[in-house]
Amino acid sequence: MGVTSNRVEDFSSHRINTEPVMPGMEIHTVCLSPKKTTLQKLKQRLSEIFFPDDPLYRFKNQTWRKKLLLGLQFLFPIFQWAPEYRLELLRSDIISGLTIASLAIPQGISYAKLANLPPIVGLYSSFVPPLIYAILGSSSHLGVGPVSIASLIMGSMLSETVSPRDEPILYLKLAFTATFFAGLFQASLGLLRLGFVIDFLSKATLVGFMSGAAVIVSLQQLKGLLGISHFTSKMQFIPVMSSVFKHRDEWSWQTIVMGFSFLVFMLTTRHISMKRAKLFWVSAAAPLTSVILSTLLVFCLRLKTHKISFIGHLPKGLNPPSANMLYFSGPDLELAIKTGIVTGILSLTEGISVGRTFAALKNYHVDGNKEMMAIGLMNMAGSCSSCFVTTGSFSRSAVNYNAGAQTAVSNIVMATAVLVTLLFLMPLFYYTPNVILGAIIISAVIGLIDYQAAYCLWKVDKLDFLACLCSFFGVLFISVPLGLGIAVGVSVFKILLHVTRPNSLIMGNIKGTQIYHSLSRYKEASRVPSFLILAIESPIYFANSTYLQERILRWIREEDEWIKANDGSPLKCIILDMTAVTAIDTSGIDLLCELRKMLEKRSLKLVLANPVGSVMEKLHQSKMLDSFGLNGIYLAVGEAVADISALWKSQPDFPEDCNETRQCRETKR
Amino acid sequence: MGVTSNRVEDFSSHRINTEPVMPGMEIHTVCLSPKKTTLQKLKQRLSEIFFPDDPLYRFKNQTWRKKLLLGLQFLFPIFQWAPEYRLELLRSDIISGLTIASLAIPQGISYAKLANLPPIVGLYSSFVPPLIYAILGSSSHLGVGPVSIASLIMGSMLSETVSPRDEPILYLKLAFTATFFAGLFQASLGLLRLGFVIDFLSKATLVGFMSGAAVIVSLQQLKGLLGISHFTSKMQFIPVMSSVFKHRDEWSWQTIVMGFSFLVFMLTTRHISMKRAKLFWVSAAAPLTSVILSTLLVFCLRLKTHKISFIGHLPKGLNPPSANMLYFSGPDLELAIKTGIVTGILSLTEGISVGRTFAALKNYHVDGNKEMMAIGLMNMAGSCSSCFVTTGSFSRSAVNYNAGAQTAVSNIVMATAVLVTLLFLMPLFYYTPNVILGAIIISAVIGLIDYQAAYCLWKVDKLDFLACLCSFFGVLFISVPLGLGIAVGVSVFKILLHVTRPNSLIMGNIKGTQIYHSLSRYKEASRVPSFLILAIESPIYFANSTYLQERILRWIREEDEWIKANDGSPLKCIILDMTAVTAIDTSGIDLLCELRKMLEKRSLKLVLANPVGSVMEKLHQSKMLDSFGLNGIYLAVGEAVADISALWKSQPDFPEDCNETRQCRETKR
Repeated sequence: MGVTSNRVEDFSSHRINTEPVMPGMEIHTVCLSPKKTTLQKLKQRLSEIFFPDDPLYRFKNQTWRKKLLLGLQFLFPIFQWAPEYRLELLRSDIISGLTIASLAIPQGISYAKLANLPPIVGLYSSFVPPLIYAILGSSSHLGVGPVSIASLIMGSMLSETVSPRDEPILYLKLAFTATFFAGLFQASLGLLRLGFVIDFLSKATLVGFMSGAAVIVSLQQLKGLLGISHFTSKMQFIPVMSSVFKHRDEWSWQTIVMGFSFLVFMLTTRHISMKRAKLFWVSAAAPLTSVILSTLLVFCLRLKTHKISFIGHLPKGLNPPSANMLYFSGPDLELAIKTGIVTGILSLTEGISVGRTFAALKNYHVDGNKEMMAIGLMNMAGSCSSCFVTTGSFSRSAVNYNAGAQTAVSNIVMATAVLVTLLFLMPLFYYTPNVILGAIIISAVIGLIDYQAAYCLWKVDKLDFLACLCSFFGVLFISVPLGLGIAVGVSVFKILLHVTRPNSLIMGNIKGTQIYHSLSRYKEASRVPSFLILAIESPIYFANSTYLQERILRWIREEDEWIKANDGSPLKCIILDMTAVTAIDTSGIDLLCELRKMLEKRSLKLVLANPVGSVMEKLHQSKMLDSFGLNGIYLAVGEAVADISALWKSQPDFPEDCNETRQCRETKR
Repeated sequence: MGVTSNRVEDFSSHRINTEPVMPGMEIHTVCLSPKKTTLQKLKQRLSEIFFPDDPLYRFKNQTWRKKLLLGLQFLFPIFQWAPEYRLELLRSDIISGLTIASLAIPQGISYAKLANLPPIVGLYSSFVPPLIYAILGSSSHLGVGPVSIASLIMGSMLSETVSPRDEPILYLKLAFTATFFAGLFQASLGLLRLGFVIDFLSKATLVGFMSGAAVIVSLQQLKGLLGISHFTSKMQFIPVMSSVFKHRDEWSWQTIVMGFSFLVFMLTTRHISMKRAKLFWVSAAAPLTSVILSTLLVFCLRLKTHKISFIGHLPKGLNPPSANMLYFSGPDLELAIKTGIVTGILSLTEGISVGRTFAALKNYHVDGNKEMMAIGLMNMAGSCSSCFVTTGSFSRSAVNYNAGAQTAVSNIVMATAVLVTLLFLMPLFYYTPNVILGAIIISAVIGLIDYQAAYCLWKVDKLDFLACLCSFFGVLFISVPLGLGIAVGVSVFKILLHVTRPNSLIMGNIKGTQIYHSLSRYKEASRVPSFLILAIESPIYFANSTYLQERILRWIREEDEWIKANDGSPLKCIILDMTAVTAIDTSGIDLLCELRKMLEKRSLKLVLANPVGSVMEKLHQSKMLDSFGLNGIYLAVGEAVADISALWKSQPDFPEDCNETRQCRETKR
């Protein structure tokens, strides 16, 4: 391979043809990106930020008619799959729809209680939203309905200000309003293509948060499971535990026996289903079975004991409209908006990650921004029809998937089953004991405690594990939104720490190749005499320019010490490998300038190798390129070494741009 | 050059020697970093975070005695330069010390008024802190004293809650307490080596902030310059301007004429000094000259007009102790702490950047953490001796430098001059008009409006310019701390945006080399048939893994379209160049896993090229390496291309790990 030397070229000027330095050397150039106006750059940047998936590519080169159809399918995915729907699919969809309905009814009632809402609201929420989602959603397997985390947060945030017992109507109004704002927030995120907001909930944060929330939710159920009637309205670990033990006289053994036996039953079925995926129906049917059995039991014992509390009268009939209960002014509006945003973000995160998980299993694509709009609109519609926050639930979707759901029709089937229940079967829940609802919730949320994922985090990344711990303990001991905030803070801090204290390393040549690699990692790599080759593994920003300057000067000092100790040839040139420096700002440019000046005073040459496009552009715009000169920037480390060594050989008194150095060397002689 | 293929090696196991694929091929390996325990890694990471400059390297291999001396010099830099102090230096230091004293006295009085404090406090603050800094500081040119920005902020933050006119004693107490906490905060940052906190004030932020503060400060001076006695206590642009025009009846033409003529005088001298650096003394002497002239003028006119207000009686004597005025409990403690932290950060930023600027000019090193401790201790000592917040001031240091200061002795000379003033000359300031103080402040802060730097930001980086504008208008229209907060938020957002929406690009081979570069940037680069080589220019984090997945799939889709349009050979392999992926977290690993699975289903091979050390480690810890296999990771893009092409040639039915692919190709035949 011929050694090639690469010089800087400015696209705006003509190509500069320097004479080859050595016979056989070919001259390439490090060039700038093609010139663009500020407007073009802005357009490109914005399209990368908001339309990374180029959602309109299907519309290119199509007839108007086709474009209209594609547009309709884009807005309402039902038009995409409904025309191709065949009767064979209907059978699987009915089976899976009925299966998730059997799960949805007890879960709906339970989660409504978790949010301190009347149980019937949970059933309403399993009727309207699934229908809307079937029209707008792009996932075929998402089982839609209320979920534990969002219900818990809505309950905890609202009841801190308004008591659901003393002011039930105000509380209900606030819940619907919060649902409306959650939907509005979700839909706007989708519409404005700001889906990356939810990306800031890292996996580590979510693992900790979910586990913490599961513990909180389970502890809340101690009220029902132990039969305590005076229970704290707080959510944190300490007040709940003290409340449990303070009211020991209220514990009722009948309730405890019944609750724990059904809990053990449901956990056992869960265990069976986890062992064998084919037996998914065992755990799917368990909640409804428990409800039926326990209701019968209480009905039989109704004259013998009054110790077991039960649901009581539930109104028959369809969702009443609730648009008139929305609440757009007044002192608690801020609370409703805050609650809406927090529950909105969390339910969105759950819904989208569940949708993506099952889409990946069946190898189809779920569009995050479209899903956000679907979930958002479903919640906005829900808030006008007596529903609270809903989203894609993991447990329901898993059952749906395992039961063989093929399309969103299974959601329609589920909604129909709920409709029948609402119209005719409500009186049957009169004697359903509250304790069974607690047991259902615990058995549902226990799966959220993912200690294996936490162990994996510990093994792979200690800082991720710290974020996980922070969100877990934050949720458990402080409060749900604050715990979440702390965890997001730790995650963002991790990103910033990486930028503030970037890695830098000395590189050496791998013998027989033009490859340069870390000296400490590769035994094959060896130092190049008179050169110090440093790789910087981060963008150079205001946040790290001071650090990098100190660090680079320390590398040089240590190299000098090493050379002294090993009697090597003296250092003459520093090469900064800029491959991983993916961006630079004005402080970074100042750093390079200053570093060059400082090193020049010490008779050391500084050159850059392989700056990326955006960095080259900034260097050019800031006139830094002029000061670095054509000889200061190379396409690759190997070429820099070859070219500079050749230059030294041909001009032993140092190259033209370093008069000071030449003087130094002459005085030394 | 022989083509070499590089396979993965685990340091914990023995080296795996695969048979050479082609004659002449040499087998290297991509290897992990040497194994370290969690504790070793933690230690290394912490030392990189907190001790990047390895401050104790001087102590290595020294005798105990030498170590003790070095330790003393480390803690008190005065022991470093004092033993070598020669009499020749004293002359320069006395000249420069007296020059900055002539600047320090009027500035001290003016800035104290800016902070709503009695003028004498400004002189006290130019006496004790410079003495402390001379012992502890490592800069030879820093001129220490109160500065405009910190004074303004202290004044604005405290007077929002406590009126300096109605409760002067409480206000004074709060000011000293805030100074104490500013010092405590600064010293702790230095002690805990958390200096990077101030790095988050980017240059862009500071340019905007300083300009905004300069405008605010200048507007405040309209009170003195126009002779208004009823002035708003607010700082923002709108209330100040409305206050100016509402009290037009209070404008006094005598004051206006005097103020503006001296202002023009000082701005002219400033202009002269800026044109010719040798005439620095012209602008340095101007404030004191103005004070003397205007005082004489008012003294002569004292019987003719009462329209010009003057300072009045100032107490003679040294700094009274004020430790008993510090305030460690009570309702306003929070305010004092907040004010202390904000002024502490800002004065630290100014002091350290000024110190670094002049150190760079004379090619010596200023240790940021040590400077923080020096400035912090000087403020803590100051708060106990009736001083308010002080730091290294730019104007004073520039004059000091230009006047030829050699060591911190010039600060001692200045302090002595202030001492003489305090003891004997205070009555001379009785008739000094307040209007002249306003003129001095304006002529001092006008230099902070750096429109050239703002223009440079606009040219180089539009987002930096936006941060600059945000802090400028935030300070001007909202409030000083909030404006600063917004600007820091924009700067951090910029970092996060870069991580959330990283750049990715297609690379091509530069003919005749093993170098791969951006296709869009290099005309010489050409596609490699059947390969898609993507470079990702950012760490892969939770914040961008979703984006990157969508973006990579879009690259593949577009490549497929390009191949169809250009009749190229079908895509068979995706190479991800990981050189710039300097870190990865659990979400990033999941992305790679999932991407590999998705591409496998589409009969595409995914390999990684050149993962950096920390990424390799994480891949290994998460067992991802096992799934990628030995063939999935290469040392360089060129080697991956060579090795995989060779494999395809020798096994036309595709390599062993892609059974699915082979079947596909067989059915096609």
